[in-house]
Formats: sequence, C-alpha cells, structure tokens
Amino acid sequence: MKIIIAKRAGFCFGVKRAIDMAFEAAETKKGHVRTLGPIIHNPQVIEQLSSRGVKPVDTIEDNIEVMLIRTHGIPAPLYDELQNKGIEVLDATCPFVKKAQQYAKLLKDEGYQVIILGDKDHPEVKGILSYAGEDAIVVKDVSEIDKISKKVGIVVQTTQPVDALKKLISRVIETAKEVKVYNTICNSTALRLKETEELAKETDVMLVIGGKNSANTKQLARLCESIGVQTHHIETAEELEPEWFSAAETVGITAGASTPDWIITEVVERLRTIK
Amino acid sequence: MKIIIAKRAGFCFGVKRAIDMAFEAAETKKGHVRTLGPIIHNPQVIEQLSSRGVKPVDTIEDNIEVMLIRTHGIPAPLYDELQNKGIEVLDATCPFVKKAQQYAKLLKDEGYQVIILGDKDHPEVKGILSYAGEDAIVVKDVSEIDKISKKVGIVVQTTQPVDALKKLISRVIETAKEVKVYNTICNSTALRLKETEELAKETDVMLVIGGKNSANTKQLARLCESIGVQTHHIETAEELEPEWFSAAETVGITAGASTPDWIITEVVERLRTIK
Repeated sequence: MKIIIAKRAGFCFGVKRAIDMAFEAAETKKGHVRTLGPIIHNPQVIEQLSSRGVKPVDTIEDNIEVMLIRTHGIPAPLYDELQNKGIEVLDATCPFVKKAQQYAKLLKDEGYQVIILGDKDHPEVKGILSYAGEDAIVVKDVSEIDKISKKVGIVVQTTQPVDALKKLISRVIETAKEVKVYNTICNSTALRLKETEELAKETDVMLVIGGKNSANTKQLARLCESIGVQTHHIETAEELEPEWFSAAETVGITAGASTPDWIITEVVERLRTIK
Repeated sequence: MKIIIAKRAGFCFGVKRAIDMAFEAAETKKGHVRTLGPIIHNPQVIEQLSSRGVKPVDTIEDNIEVMLIRTHGIPAPLYDELQNKGIEVLDATCPFVKKAQQYAKLLKDEGYQVIILGDKDHPEVKGILSYAGEDAIVVKDVSEIDKISKKVGIVVQTTQPVDALKKLISRVIETAKEVKVYNTICNSTALRLKETEELAKETDVMLVIGGKNSANTKQLARLCESIGVQTHHIETAEELEPEWFSAAETVGITAGASTPDWIITEVVERLRTIK
C-alpha cells in the first residue's frame, strides 16, 4: 500500500509560531500561563501543554499572571481589560490575522463602511469586528447583505475561499461607488485545499487528521467526500480501522492547520503495520 | 400602430450640458469657437452648430481663439498646450468623466497601479489614461491582463457594462492584496440599455435613432437584434421605409445619448403619416 502525505499537511506558519511560544512560555514562566480559549483545536496538544502548566481559561480571571493570546486574536477591549488587571500578555495572534484587524481599523478611519466576510461566531472574526467601527457588518454569504453604503471597505477572515470574496465584491460594486478591498485570505488555506483535492483524486482512501471541532479540518474532509473518495476524519492513530484499507492500493494523508507533525507521524507508523 | 418611446431616449445629462454650452458659445463668441473633434456623434447637430460658427477641428491650431472640450474630455497635456497657445477653454467634459480622470490621478498618487476598464482607442479613455501614471494599463477584457501589481486601483470608462467590471475585479483580487475600485460607470447608459431591452421585448419593430458611428447607439441596436425583434438603426426620419411596418402593431423607439430630441420628434411625426 502506497502512502502519500500532502506537502502542506499540519501546522501552518501562524499555528507553529503560537505553539512554539506556548511551549517556550511553559519553560520560562512555569505554572503561571493561561490561554484565552483552547490555543488550537487539537485536544492532544492542549493536553501536552496543560501537563506543562499552560492551561486554557474561558474568562480573564483576576489571579492570572500571564495570558497567551491564541492565533485567532481577541477583540480590542480585552487588551484593555488584560492591561487593567496587570496581566502580562504574550501575543501569539497570527500575523496575518493581525493585519486583517489593522486593515479593518484603517478602513474605518478612512470613512468606509466595513464589511467582513466570514463566520460571525468565529473568534477571529469577533476580533476583527472590534476594530471595524459601529456600522461594520459580518457576512458569510452575499445573500445576507441588506444595506450597502456608497463607500465600502472589505476585509476577509483569513480562512475564507476566494470565490466567496469575488461574489461579495460583485454584489457590493453594483451599489457602492467606491470599494476598497484588502484580500486578507491566507494562501496556506487555499493551497492546503488545492493539494488535498489533487491528492484525493489519485488515492483510494483519504485520511484527514485533525480535531473533530476544527473548522479547517472538517472543510478538508468535506472536500474529499465531495470528490467521492473513501474519507476518514480522525484525531489520532488509535482510530484507524484495518478494514478501511482492505481494498486500498494508495492512501492519501492530509491534516488541518492545528495538527502537530508527531500525530501525523504516528498515523503513518500505525498504517505501515496494517498493510 | 402604437408608438412607444423609451423614457431615456436621446441626450444624457452630460451631452445636453455640452450641447447647451456649444449653442450658447455660438451666440456669445460668434465665429471663434472650435471643438477638438466632433462634439457628439451626430452629423445633424454638428451641421447645425457649424452653420452657427462652432466647427470641429482635429488639431490645436495656433489661430484658434476659443476651444470647447467635448464630453469625452482630453488628455492632460492638451490643457497645457491650449494654455501655452493662449486659447480660451470652454470645458464641457462630462462631470462623470471628469470624476474618472480625478480618481485615476488620486489612485496614482496613492501608489496604486491603475487599471482602466474600457476601449483603449476611445477619446474618453485616452483622457483618463493621461492622469493614471506610467504603469497604468487599459483593458477591455479580463483576458488582456498580463501582470498585476500587489496594489491595484481601478477606474472605468463611464459607458462600460457593470458585468465587465465584476469580471475584472474577480481576476485582479486573485493576485492583488489591495484593490481600490471607483465605480465610475454612468447609470444612464445601463438604464437606457435596460429600458430598451424591456421595450424591444414588447414591440414588433424597434427603431434605434443615432449616428451610425455612435458606439452607444450601435450597442442599443445590437441589443435589440439579439432579442430577435426587427431592428432598424437610423440617423434621421428620411431613412424610414413604409414596408418595415406593414405587419407591425407596435413600434418601439429608442435613441443614443447623442441624438437630439428634435430628430426623435421628426421620426415620430413621419411614422404617424405612414400608418
């Protein structure tokens, strides 16, 4: 059985940076570090970090000494709250997300009505929205747009597909006289999807590794299923079932942006024992 | 036979303004006024103005005293040439075209590579291009685009269809990180096309009145033909042939932006004598 691993499987640049910061903080600031929400959608990594004293919290409690901000970023007022409480901030906001926040603020300051393309419940989008001014709106689909101002600025959740952006602009330009767009889509998401699609087309079974609640991992699994290849979304090597591969000549492996390399390696090693 | 005239047949705002300026100049500046190129694509109006002393010229000759700039506008260096030669300028550039010129300059000054959507040989586009900087390009179709910079500004020839603009932006946003668009399309062109389309669908014969070399009139005629209605592009009432209407119960009339009301009226009067 041939095993092919997608080139961009696993951690993206921003996640790798954040995880490195977290493990470093576990060493240098022992016992004191908290992350606001789970640092990534991967239970195994969170467990590893927890055992080293870096634990997720839901709220900014007074007794926290060091707070690590995850890649998604946080809404602007939370920085003030952290400062007011004298909590040290380790900012692991993905630099690409940071840019989207800054562009939202810039557009607001230049008098544009800001439209953010993305999921309104996603933490990244909530962060960007906090910089975008009072008349800003978040839309996931062009059909949600109601009123469009004459001067519109657009920023995008970094993981959105470019086709959704094209549709949004096409709708906005019908009404607005001036449109300024910052294409803040991160290429790594698009490239990961593209490579996964190509791989799924030439393999008999696709293994998609990543947290069951990771949006980008679920997106990869849906893509593979849509191509018609036998697809399994797993979190660890433990979940592998030998019968999945009984008729398989080639197995493709891809993984979400929050899946560490060692989990991918474990899956590959386990696969080799199966067939 | 029922005759229906499209609401927006004939002069648009910019053309009406320019023609009014030309007739006024014929009174107040007798014998001295020239227009750089024919003021509109309508031979009948040009003849009327010529007989009053307002004549088109191809070049800026030294002995001209007053130059009227037509709605399309002129390239920036020609203003300098007119000034250097001490020629008085009556600027009838359409205010919407003027805006497109100003936005092109603004985008250039803000460091954008300017892309102009339009016909590169059209005088309006040549004017806009003169403000757009050295790295500006003109494209009529998205397939003509070769190299796209990271920071792109877009302005549009006022008579372009919005669908072409959507296609252009969709292509540019794939590569560029920042896109600023001024939608300088004039609504009157789109509304005229829309009304003509609706009219063509409910009539047996369509008469499209306007200069045979008028781009917007030809566009109206093509639209009617594409709907499958019997279509005749005429310049004056003289061209009407009674047999066109032998089986017609309803006749629709539309006219290009450079067609004066009196020509439309003549056509209607002549039609009434036919059937």
